Amino acid sequence: MRASQFFIATLKEAPSDAEIVSHKLMLRAGLIRRLAGGIYTWMPMGLRVLRKVENIVREEMDRAGAIELLMPAVQPFELWEESGRGPKYGPELLRFKDRHQRDFVIGPTHEEVITDVVRRDVKSYRQLPRHFYQIQTKFRDEIRPRFGVMRGREFLMKDGYSFHTSYADLEREYRNMYDTYSRIFTRLGLKFRAVAADTGAIGGTGSHEFHVLADSGEDAIAFCPASDYAANVELAEAVTPVKVMRSGIPGDGAGGTATMEKKATPGKTRCEDVAAFLGLPLTQTVKAIAVMAEKESGSEFVLLLLRGDHDLNEIKAQKVVGEFRFARDEEIVEALRCKAGYIGAVGFKGRVVADRSVAVMSDMVCGANEEGFHLTGVNFGRDLPQPATVADIRNVVEGDPSPDGNGTLELCRGIEVGHIFQLRTKYAEALKCTFLDEQGKDQVMEMGCYGIGVSRIVGAAIEQGHDERGIIFPAGIAPFAVAIVPMNYAKSEAVRAAAGALHAELLAAGIDAILDDRDERPGSMFADWELIGIPHRVVVGERGLKEGKLEYKGRSDAEATMVAIGEMAAFLKQKLCDA
Amino acid sequence: MRASQFFIATLKEAPSDAEIVSHKLMLRAGLIRRLAGGIYTWMPMGLRVLRKVENIVREEMDRAGAIELLMPAVQPFELWEESGRGPKYGPELLRFKDRHQRDFVIGPTHEEVITDVVRRDVKSYRQLPRHFYQIQTKFRDEIRPRFGVMRGREFLMKDGYSFHTSYADLEREYRNMYDTYSRIFTRLGLKFRAVAADTGAIGGTGSHEFHVLADSGEDAIAFCPASDYAANVELAEAVTPVKVMRSGIPGDGAGGTATMEKKATPGKTRCEDVAAFLGLPLTQTVKAIAVMAEKESGSEFVLLLLRGDHDLNEIKAQKVVGEFRFARDEEIVEALRCKAGYIGAVGFKGRVVADRSVAVMSDMVCGANEEGFHLTGVNFGRDLPQPATVADIRNVVEGDPSPDGNGTLELCRGIEVGHIFQLRTKYAEALKCTFLDEQGKDQVMEMGCYGIGVSRIVGAAIEQGHDERGIIFPAGIAPFAVAIVPMNYAKSEAVRAAAGALHAELLAAGIDAILDDRDERPGSMFADWELIGIPHRVVVGERGLKEGKLEYKGRSDAEATMVAIGEMAAFLKQKLCDA
Repeated sequence: MRASQFFIATLKEAPSDAEIVSHKLMLRAGLIRRLAGGIYTWMPMGLRVLRKVENIVREEMDRAGAIELLMPAVQPFELWEESGRGPKYGPELLRFKDRHQRDFVIGPTHEEVITDVVRRDVKSYRQLPRHFYQIQTKFRDEIRPRFGVMRGREFLMKDGYSFHTSYADLEREYRNMYDTYSRIFTRLGLKFRAVAADTGAIGGTGSHEFHVLADSGEDAIAFCPASDYAANVELAEAVTPVKVMRSGIPGDGAGGTATMEKKATPGKTRCEDVAAFLGLPLTQTVKAIAVMAEKESGSEFVLLLLRGDHDLNEIKAQKVVGEFRFARDEEIVEALRCKAGYIGAVGFKGRVVADRSVAVMSDMVCGANEEGFHLTGVNFGRDLPQPATVADIRNVVEGDPSPDGNGTLELCRGIEVGHIFQLRTKYAEALKCTFLDEQGKDQVMEMGCYGIGVSRIVGAAIEQGHDERGIIFPAGIAPFAVAIVPMNYAKSEAVRAAAGALHAELLAAGIDAILDDRDERPGSMFADWELIGIPHRVVVGERGLKEGKLEYKGRSDAEATMVAIGEMAAFLKQKLCDA
Repeated sequence: MRASQFFIATLKEAPSDAEIVSHKLMLRAGLIRRLAGGIYTWMPMGLRVLRKVENIVREEMDRAGAIELLMPAVQPFELWEESGRGPKYGPELLRFKDRHQRDFVIGPTHEEVITDVVRRDVKSYRQLPRHFYQIQTKFRDEIRPRFGVMRGREFLMKDGYSFHTSYADLEREYRNMYDTYSRIFTRLGLKFRAVAADTGAIGGTGSHEFHVLADSGEDAIAFCPASDYAANVELAEAVTPVKVMRSGIPGDGAGGTATMEKKATPGKTRCEDVAAFLGLPLTQTVKAIAVMAEKESGSEFVLLLLRGDHDLNEIKAQKVVGEFRFARDEEIVEALRCKAGYIGAVGFKGRVVADRSVAVMSDMVCGANEEGFHLTGVNFGRDLPQPATVADIRNVVEGDPSPDGNGTLELCRGIEVGHIFQLRTKYAEALKCTFLDEQGKDQVMEMGCYGIGVSRIVGAAIEQGHDERGIIFPAGIAPFAVAIVPMNYAKSEAVRAAAGALHAELLAAGIDAILDDRDERPGSMFADWELIGIPHRVVVGERGLKEGKLEYKGRSDAEATMVAIGEMAAFLKQKLCDA
């Protein structure tokens, strides 16, 4: 490709409504243009990236044995009624009536359609397993589309659906897809983590999310660098600190020795402030969180105890105490005769749930249930009863032991770009998708489903790879792998000849190179290719040519390197192999 | 690909609602499955065909210098108001409100969106010309979707839009696209014609349609085998018969010699019946068609005269007499004192329009304006006045001289699969899409637009290529180029080895071959691959192997050929080159 025959549309400034770096850079680099909220045109430069991502996804899905088809975007609503999903779906499902007043939806996913195809065309165990996938533009009417292509309304997605005679076979394919997704994100050149995830609205049991790691990611992930353990912070288990659990009895841990004393802590309501005021470590403090748990007979006042440096995980707490809400001020005063900020479990006769970390503490600092006072040297068994319930109710923090027993956890942020589910028989049962087994008996199929946000990956890759000059694309998905930038192209025949020869040589070697024959100012051409994120740049100038050399610079290199003309193609091939 | 890892879903019978052969065969061969009226899933087998068509289109568009991008399917209705097209479009335009009650459409074409992109990003003559195209799923809410993918509601289309500084440059690109489309349909392996066309609703002037020739086609086309002249029958000019035009005066042609006589023709109202009854050639008869032409002052009774073997072309007639409707029985009786079937121009004092072919006739047979009687030996000048108006008002027929002076016309039927338009400044003016010319002056861009019905091509190819056993695909778009069909695959190790080796050899040579390892009955496997339309079949059997041979059969061959094992790959390569 030559730049003069392509369309380069870089901007000096991003429109002010672009919130995050990938959105800004995609607009500035001319990868996308906004048509309406959450709806973008993929410009020629951006489409090259999108297609490269799409092709890697397709190649690996094919290699894994999945079979591509293409389902309609427009689906009859009847199918969504049959699956029972229609009424549950919110307004992000775009519904419309056709000219004959029949109800349709623009499908955000295709469980119903593929199940309908399979129930008609697959009758026997001999035709199973089968895994069908498609790569398709989808529409979801997000209430607040934002972040450019990361949370757009129209987007490109790979969605796959597998059908099995048994749960064991579904599990085999689920592992196959886990490995396939790992290969895909590795080939895309992205740092990622597969994390255990909640299944959300799509239904079924057993699922993993694939996250591209980036500081701007919406999801917090806990992972163990020493193993492949990773989980959403919401789900990662905070294991009981082992070292201090000698006898297994809570409170027996470190053997408290201090005497309980009441200390004046005027105006200090947060653990951080109390610890600092008393000159004690924050890890010695206990925060009591008052909640109202829902019961059939009404609501019950419950105290949740957490170490001062820990945060409550509401999902975990809910699994222990059931549905709850935070107690109102007057409910706290009624239960403890004290306002929030100075409350504690000493003297409280009601239900107490202690986090695992609290249960092994000794010589604790906690609220005195008296405004302006805290207690120090508090110990279970002596100053208050052993807590009736000990459970994991906090978020993990950096340094926590990994639940798989291998080293300690670290935290990072991620952008969800893939998701694999075991749907089991949810859809197959609703839509009566059955097969005849070897005994000639009708059985409901087991199903899995597997999604990748193809357009979202482009945004996520930029969130992960950029600097102050622009995008830094992995070589495999950059719009071009190499930019050849000639100096004085229009006037210098020697430059034109050398640049043209290198271009031809690279194209012949299968290297996706663009020759910038625009003859603009060097600074402006350099800035464009750095903004667009082309990984490798070759400058062809008369001065270098006199010495038989060309100038090479990698997108993240501090300095350029001179390479002999005859060696440049091999040099670049090596660079692309290393990547 | 191995059949066991693919998905083959052939049917014995097509569903009864499939009307035409391509629709039936696509369902039976498992290329598509119906989801709703005019909405189909492209099954794995069909998607391979669709993608091959798509890739040929893409390669040739790229080669022609067009640049691919991808616009959103969902478009804000405001743009359609700005272009003025929104209110004019009928109910096939799918409109909907998003959750914020903003109006959107699912765009059936993208003139507005691309013009919006270009007006924002292209400012100078230096950035022109540019031709952008996309290959995209579109939706059109057809009132009566039918013929499978030939007139579906959801379909895949290539749409391109070019922008120019001058009309001359638009014309250059228009010719470039004319040539590109011809290359595309040639590469697709289809018999086609480019025909001059009316522009229809899309607007602008100057357009050609590309038709795949097939007996079942909806459009009648007149073409000249001796030149590249082709036109819709509605538009093809019927030139004045030259041979009989000696002096250029109508009626002077053949020099009538007969006497005018009134003949009883009881019950004979059609020219065919009159000619047969009188024992005269049909070409000697004249039919008079009575119409009411609209005038400001009311309507005027006009007689249109056509040779008995010719049909009226209403579009052409309208250009001569203006808007008209056929006269009612009572209007005919009032004007001619005779009922239809026996009417003629002799004695009629009103307006007469004669077709060019009539004007050169002599010794004509026409209605006597008396029920049950016709006149013979009628001649212009003697028996009735020279017609005031002589014009081309008929459809061309086979054997008519070609308007370009090269030989004679033939007729065929076609399926429209491509269309190129000169839009000129229609959209650019409405959307204020301008550029600065070399003098720094604002100018409106000239535009062209160019469409190809990608999914429709699959149906059209099947209409053109099929027999009683199934589809006959051109090799370039068949789902697989070669089917390897082993006999007794499961039990014979020799067969398995030979089939596997040939398969590997073909794949290595870049030949898209499928190995049918299903081990079904030979007849059933043969029937499947013939139904699906695979152009080349190789049978691997133990008997042949003993002699070192494999059996080859082309899809349209009457007999199979034995080919030495070692020569089969080269043999197939040659076959594919020849295609």
